[in-house]
Amino acid sequence: MIPAPVAAERNTKSVVGGSRLGPKGFQASGIACGIKAAAGAKDLALIYSEVPAQVAGLFTKNRVKAAPVLATRRRVRRGLCRALIVNSGNANACTGEKGLQDAETTATLIARALHCPPRHVLVSSTGVIGHPLPMERIEGGIASLVAQLSSEGFHDAAEAIMTTDTLPKMVTEQVAFADQEVTILGMAKGAGMIHPQLATMLAFILTDVKVEHTVLSALLKEGVSSTFNRITVDGDTSTNDMIILMANGEASPSALVPGDGGFRPFREALFGVMDQLARAIVKDGEGRTKVVEICVQGARNVQEAERVAFRVAHSPLVKTAFFGEDPNWGRIMAAVGDARVAVDPQKISIFFDDVMVVDNGIAAPGAGEEQQRKVLKQEEFTVTIDLHAGSAQASVLTTDLSSDYVKINASYRT
Amino acid sequence: MIPAPVAAERNTKSVVGGSRLGPKGFQASGIACGIKAAAGAKDLALIYSEVPAQVAGLFTKNRVKAAPVLATRRRVRRGLCRALIVNSGNANACTGEKGLQDAETTATLIARALHCPPRHVLVSSTGVIGHPLPMERIEGGIASLVAQLSSEGFHDAAEAIMTTDTLPKMVTEQVAFADQEVTILGMAKGAGMIHPQLATMLAFILTDVKVEHTVLSALLKEGVSSTFNRITVDGDTSTNDMIILMANGEASPSALVPGDGGFRPFREALFGVMDQLARAIVKDGEGRTKVVEICVQGARNVQEAERVAFRVAHSPLVKTAFFGEDPNWGRIMAAVGDARVAVDPQKISIFFDDVMVVDNGIAAPGAGEEQQRKVLKQEEFTVTIDLHAGSAQASVLTTDLSSDYVKINASYRT
Repeated sequence: MIPAPVAAERNTKSVVGGSRLGPKGFQASGIACGIKAAAGAKDLALIYSEVPAQVAGLFTKNRVKAAPVLATRRRVRRGLCRALIVNSGNANACTGEKGLQDAETTATLIARALHCPPRHVLVSSTGVIGHPLPMERIEGGIASLVAQLSSEGFHDAAEAIMTTDTLPKMVTEQVAFADQEVTILGMAKGAGMIHPQLATMLAFILTDVKVEHTVLSALLKEGVSSTFNRITVDGDTSTNDMIILMANGEASPSALVPGDGGFRPFREALFGVMDQLARAIVKDGEGRTKVVEICVQGARNVQEAERVAFRVAHSPLVKTAFFGEDPNWGRIMAAVGDARVAVDPQKISIFFDDVMVVDNGIAAPGAGEEQQRKVLKQEEFTVTIDLHAGSAQASVLTTDLSSDYVKINASYRT
Repeated sequence: MIPAPVAAERNTKSVVGGSRLGPKGFQASGIACGIKAAAGAKDLALIYSEVPAQVAGLFTKNRVKAAPVLATRRRVRRGLCRALIVNSGNANACTGEKGLQDAETTATLIARALHCPPRHVLVSSTGVIGHPLPMERIEGGIASLVAQLSSEGFHDAAEAIMTTDTLPKMVTEQVAFADQEVTILGMAKGAGMIHPQLATMLAFILTDVKVEHTVLSALLKEGVSSTFNRITVDGDTSTNDMIILMANGEASPSALVPGDGGFRPFREALFGVMDQLARAIVKDGEGRTKVVEICVQGARNVQEAERVAFRVAHSPLVKTAFFGEDPNWGRIMAAVGDARVAVDPQKISIFFDDVMVVDNGIAAPGAGEEQQRKVLKQEEFTVTIDLHAGSAQASVLTTDLSSDYVKINASYRT
């Protein structure tokens, strides 16, 4: 059964434990083939479109790119795909020529089983860097992976792409317009701290709308900028990050075009799926006990607002203070001042939810520490920083930095 | 008694538990006046030069500057000083107009007691941000602070500037040339992680050499670039950071000039003091269990070598792997690729001490994991990253990221 989508309460159109089906013409499966050490842990996922789908993708900006990133980026440029195979437990990164061959071999095996050209098969990996893919295990798993393809297999696939995630992340939305009802299904794996500096983020979004490749690419880019890129620093990405958006047109009689009546509701639903997945990644941040929105307003422009928000969201001292539920706003002021943005400290105000803690750069009069602490004791709260320098704003979602984060990452690999 | 200087083994000229005296004509004291909550914890330090001293200083680049930084920077520009008063336990930052007045009042009180102009008294603070200085306690402590001034008081002063430091950091060097024997004494307080992103770093260096103000300033700048700035990201500084260098000329008949026979040995001794203090700060990093030198070589230029070294030294995933003694070199490769430097992943080699772990971007043949783990089990080791792109290099000293770091910072203030 498909579980309640994570963060689904934010969107009333979400299918919460309702339809077990994804977008029309898509199937998926997820199995355990032995890449992960834990017995029975799913580690191989397949997504399949019954007809060729338009595809758009965004990839890590890391100079060290895993083999599957190189192989898939090349394929996405051509604009069409039928299938996507993903393994967890091994990143196939820093594996040299053999890694590239392994990625190609995997695509070829899937292509043979599904009777499509290898160039229509995307590959993706996440896990430990520097070890060759255990190809016998993947080869051994492919028959079963293909046999288990089903229109109800998306949850198995979402489970098979997990690494340090504690739960699978999947969201479904339906949106109706004119004569169409289309479905959007997204799955993701997160991990790492909120800014997954080096932890891999994968997101796969499938829809049965009909749409041109250029429109699809533009939608992906626009959506990511306000969702996934607001939980990770631009460029601060792992060797394996990728976000793939596939549209097979099976639910649409005609292609969706900007300006159409249906374009806006579709775009909103798509961005809603991205937003929910991004938030789900934060909520499942390694060892986190808090989810904190850092909202910077009154900036001269969005870039500066973002820079300040990320600097605060990144600061280990701010994040450990959140963990300790300590209203130590001085650390926030210091992080703001360190963002390489021309701020006037004497104009800054800071709020914990609705409680003003800093006014004109100094402790707000009458801001009782008990009142501040009460906000920080919540699992979720917002820190608003007003620079009083303009009218631009940006929000970033972050977590606290807990002892458990250290424990998880000191022992992850071994 | 002056304890063995931290890291003194690196320099044979260090006075290890020998002379209890600092540079000629300097005195110091350190007392507990009640700013820190813990009974008897020293929190007020005074350094005094019997004659006006030339002074140079470097200050935080944080846009949010504490009141003592503003007051002292103005004074240092004039080039002369007699005294420096430092309190720990309270940063006097984000304290508005009152904070500036408090800094001025403190300087004036010391000036009165020492019979010198207030403009010759520097002030410095470290501790919690956003609380007004407890002026009654400081005022109450000044008489005793001045009364206890002594040429043997430097260790008390070094103790009184500590916050989360576990031990005072003080180094003394003597250097002889021509007809002179001059002394250099440095004290520092560190804290935070190795890159003290927001934790305050203070360093005060005193010498009895005679030297012009412009020469002194140039020496300070040059020395810091290869010492203190190699343990902290340039600009990533707290609201209160400052490094002060005072030279009172009491041991020199004539001013030291670049080109003199004595200039080079003096410069070396001075940089040696800075280097030892910088290393002592790293060694006392919050919760650290390892000290790791990240050495990047084969870069196209020093800037790129530094950027890569700092990116690796900064990565929470790399630092937690050090803590876990896990030879997870993939995280290092990913951090290198994420440094916004055009590297060719297939040319990179990585060594743990002398053990090659990565060759041409992939696992080095025959690099046994046991051998790698043996290096990481040491308290100190070097990670060398060769980019094979040029001949520039840079080294950065970092620590691991331990559960204790989180504990210390989650509860520091309260």
